[in-house]
Amino acid sequence: MPASPIRKLVPFAEEAKRKGRKVYHLNIGQPDIKTPEVAREAVRQMPDQVIAYSHSAGNESYRRKLATFYQGIGIQVDHEEILVTTGGSEAITFSLMSTVNPDEEVIVPEPFYANYNGFSVAAGVKVVPITSDISSGFALPPMGEFERVITPRTRGIIICNPNNPTGYLYSKEELETLGEIVRKHDLYLFSDEVYREFCYDGESHFSAMNLRGLEQNVIMLDSVSKRYSMCGVRVGNLVTRNKEVISTALKFAQARLSPPSYGQVAGEAALDTPASYFREVYDEYIERRNFLVKALNQMPGVVCPTPKGAFYTVVRLPVDDADKFAKWILSDFEYKNQTVMMAPASGFYSTPGLGTQEVRIAYVLQKEELALAMETLAEALKAYPGRTL
Amino acid sequence: MPASPIRKLVPFAEEAKRKGRKVYHLNIGQPDIKTPEVAREAVRQMPDQVIAYSHSAGNESYRRKLATFYQGIGIQVDHEEILVTTGGSEAITFSLMSTVNPDEEVIVPEPFYANYNGFSVAAGVKVVPITSDISSGFALPPMGEFERVITPRTRGIIICNPNNPTGYLYSKEELETLGEIVRKHDLYLFSDEVYREFCYDGESHFSAMNLRGLEQNVIMLDSVSKRYSMCGVRVGNLVTRNKEVISTALKFAQARLSPPSYGQVAGEAALDTPASYFREVYDEYIERRNFLVKALNQMPGVVCPTPKGAFYTVVRLPVDDADKFAKWILSDFEYKNQTVMMAPASGFYSTPGLGTQEVRIAYVLQKEELALAMETLAEALKAYPGRTL
Repeated sequence: MPASPIRKLVPFAEEAKRKGRKVYHLNIGQPDIKTPEVAREAVRQMPDQVIAYSHSAGNESYRRKLATFYQGIGIQVDHEEILVTTGGSEAITFSLMSTVNPDEEVIVPEPFYANYNGFSVAAGVKVVPITSDISSGFALPPMGEFERVITPRTRGIIICNPNNPTGYLYSKEELETLGEIVRKHDLYLFSDEVYREFCYDGESHFSAMNLRGLEQNVIMLDSVSKRYSMCGVRVGNLVTRNKEVISTALKFAQARLSPPSYGQVAGEAALDTPASYFREVYDEYIERRNFLVKALNQMPGVVCPTPKGAFYTVVRLPVDDADKFAKWILSDFEYKNQTVMMAPASGFYSTPGLGTQEVRIAYVLQKEELALAMETLAEALKAYPGRTL
Repeated sequence: MPASPIRKLVPFAEEAKRKGRKVYHLNIGQPDIKTPEVAREAVRQMPDQVIAYSHSAGNESYRRKLATFYQGIGIQVDHEEILVTTGGSEAITFSLMSTVNPDEEVIVPEPFYANYNGFSVAAGVKVVPITSDISSGFALPPMGEFERVITPRTRGIIICNPNNPTGYLYSKEELETLGEIVRKHDLYLFSDEVYREFCYDGESHFSAMNLRGLEQNVIMLDSVSKRYSMCGVRVGNLVTRNKEVISTALKFAQARLSPPSYGQVAGEAALDTPASYFREVYDEYIERRNFLVKALNQMPGVVCPTPKGAFYTVVRLPVDDADKFAKWILSDFEYKNQTVMMAPASGFYSTPGLGTQEVRIAYVLQKEELALAMETLAEALKAYPGRTL
C-alpha cells in the first residue's frame, strides 16, 4: 500500500511544532467531544476479576441492547443479525472477506474514506471508483455511471452515509436508486453508517437497512467511535439479515477470538447516554459547521458545499496542487506563529489526477480555534506562490 | 472455512448443561487465573475524558516499556522494533500479510493452533503441515521433513513455543536447527511466544529473537492475554528487527487505526505486576500439570507426554475416534451428573486422518475440579462403546 498524502505531511507538521508553531489539526477524524460519562463509569465499575474473552460475536447482552437501539431508530433487527467487531474497520474487513472473493470488485463513489483501500488490499478485493463532483455537492453519481463500470466480477457497492470525507447525506431517493442497481445486478450494498447520528438542518437519515426487498443484499457497518466520541475503545458492529453472511463473518470473528471486553462494556453502557448529550454535541457541530462554511466561502476562489452530515467538508482551493499547498503551509508559512494541517483530497480519490485542488477539513476543533485556523488559511491563500487567483 | 471439531461440540455441551449436568471445560485456553490488580486499577484510574485513538503502532510509552521488559529477559530490542496489535491474532495476520503473498506457503509443524488456518485464509496464504508425533512428545520434526516440503513458493515457518496445543517447549538446539533451515532457504520465521512465561521443570525459554544472523528473518508474535490472564483486553504485539516488515505492518495498522486504548493501559500497567503473582501462577499450573499428567497416564491405554510449557497437553486415548468420543461423552454419558468437554485433536492437524485418537486438554481449572474431571474421563473410557482396549 502506498503512503497516503496525509501521512506524508506528518513530518512537516512535526517540524512546524519543533519550531514552536501552533498547528491546527483540521486533518483528523478524532473529535474533541468528551466520551459520555456513563460509558467511562461502566468501565471503572466492571466487576470481572478475569478480563476474559467474550463471545466471538460480542456479548449477547450488548447485541440485544444494540438491537433495541436500532429498533428505536426504525431499523428492525434482532441481536442474531448483529456481529460486534473490533471497530468499524473490522466490520468492513469481515464484510468484504465474507462476500467478495479475491480479484472481484466493489464499486465505491469517490472521494471515499481512504482506508477502504487498505481494507480492500487486506481482503484482496479490487476497488472500482465512480466519481462524484464538488459542483453537485458530491451527490450520488447517476445510475448510468454505476452501469458503466459493472462487470461480471462486480460483487458490491460501498457507500458511506453521511459521507466521510464530503459530509454529503444521501437522500431516500438516492438510496432507492442505489437499491435498484443492487437489485438489478444482485450485488451487496455495504452501507457505512458510522456518522448516522450527525445529520443537520432537519434532514433525516435513511438507512440502507430499510430498503425493501434487499434484506439479503444489505450489510450495514457501524461503530461507537464517532457516535460517543470513543474512537479508542475499538468497538463496531456489522448488521445484516443475510444469515449466510453473518455465519461466514462469525468464522472470521472466531479466528480472532473476541472483540475488546472493556470496549464492549463501554459500548453497552453508552447506549444509555442521555439525550441532552446528543443535543449539546449537535449544537456544537452545527455552530462549527456554519462558521466554517461561511468563513471558507468568503475566501476568494474557495468553493465549499454545505455538508448535511458527519463533521467533514471537502473544499476546492484556488491553488495549483493541494498536496503541495498542504505541505507548503506547514513547512514554509506561518501567520502569527500559527499554521494549519489539512488532508489533501487526492488521497480520497482512486482515479489519478482527481481532487488536486481539494482538501478535506474536519471541524473537530472548538470555534475559537477554528476561527484562528480559518484566519491563517485565508492569509496563506494570499501568500501561496502557486495560487491560481 | 470449515467449522472446527471443537465448535461442532458446542451444542452438545449446551444440551448437557440444559439437562442439569456439570460440564468441566478442558477445551479452552481461557485461564481462570485473576488478572493482575495493577492492570485493572490502571484502567479504573485512566484520566482521559476522550477515549481517543492511540498511535497506530500503539502508545509510545507502552512500546518503550515493552522494550525494557524484553531487554530484561535477554531480548535486545528497542521500541521502534515493536508494533502493538489487537491481540496476538492481529500480530499473526499483520505478519503474514506483510511478508507472504497470496498463494505462497508457510510451513507449520502439526498439530498446530487451529486459528493459524483462519489467519492464513484471511491473508490468502497456504499452510503446509509437517507432522510432529506424540511418540517423541511432539518434538520438532527432523530437518529433512522441512526440506521435503520446501518449494519456491515457501516463504516462512510458523512455530509456537511453548506450543499450543502440545505444551512442547523447543530446546535451544531445536531452534538452531530451525535457524539453519531458515537461513539456507531465506525464509521468515514467525515465532509465536505468547506462552513464554509458562515453562516448567527448570527449563528455560530460548527466543527465536536470539538466533544470530537471522535479524531480518525472525518475527516474534506476543500477547498479554495469557501472561497476565487478560485475554479480553485484546492487546498483543509483533517484534522484528526487519525495518521493512515493521514499515509494511504499520500500513495495515494504520488502516485499522489503532489497537484498543483501554487494553494498552492495562498492558502497560501489567508490566509492573509483582514477581509474587507469577510465582503463584507457576505453582498453580505446575501442580495442575503434575496432577493431570499422572492421572491421565494411570488410565489404561492413555498416553500423555509431560508438557514442559503452556497449559495444554495432547493426549492419546484408547478410542476409535476422538471426535466421536468427545461428542459421546457430552451427549450420552454422565458420571455423578458430570461430564467433560475436550478439544478433539483432529482440529489441530492439517493432514487428514491424523490425531484421530488424540484430544487436547487445557489445565485451566482448579485442582479439585480437575480431579473430578479426570475421574469422569476415566469412567467414560471404561463405558465408551468404541473403546479400543
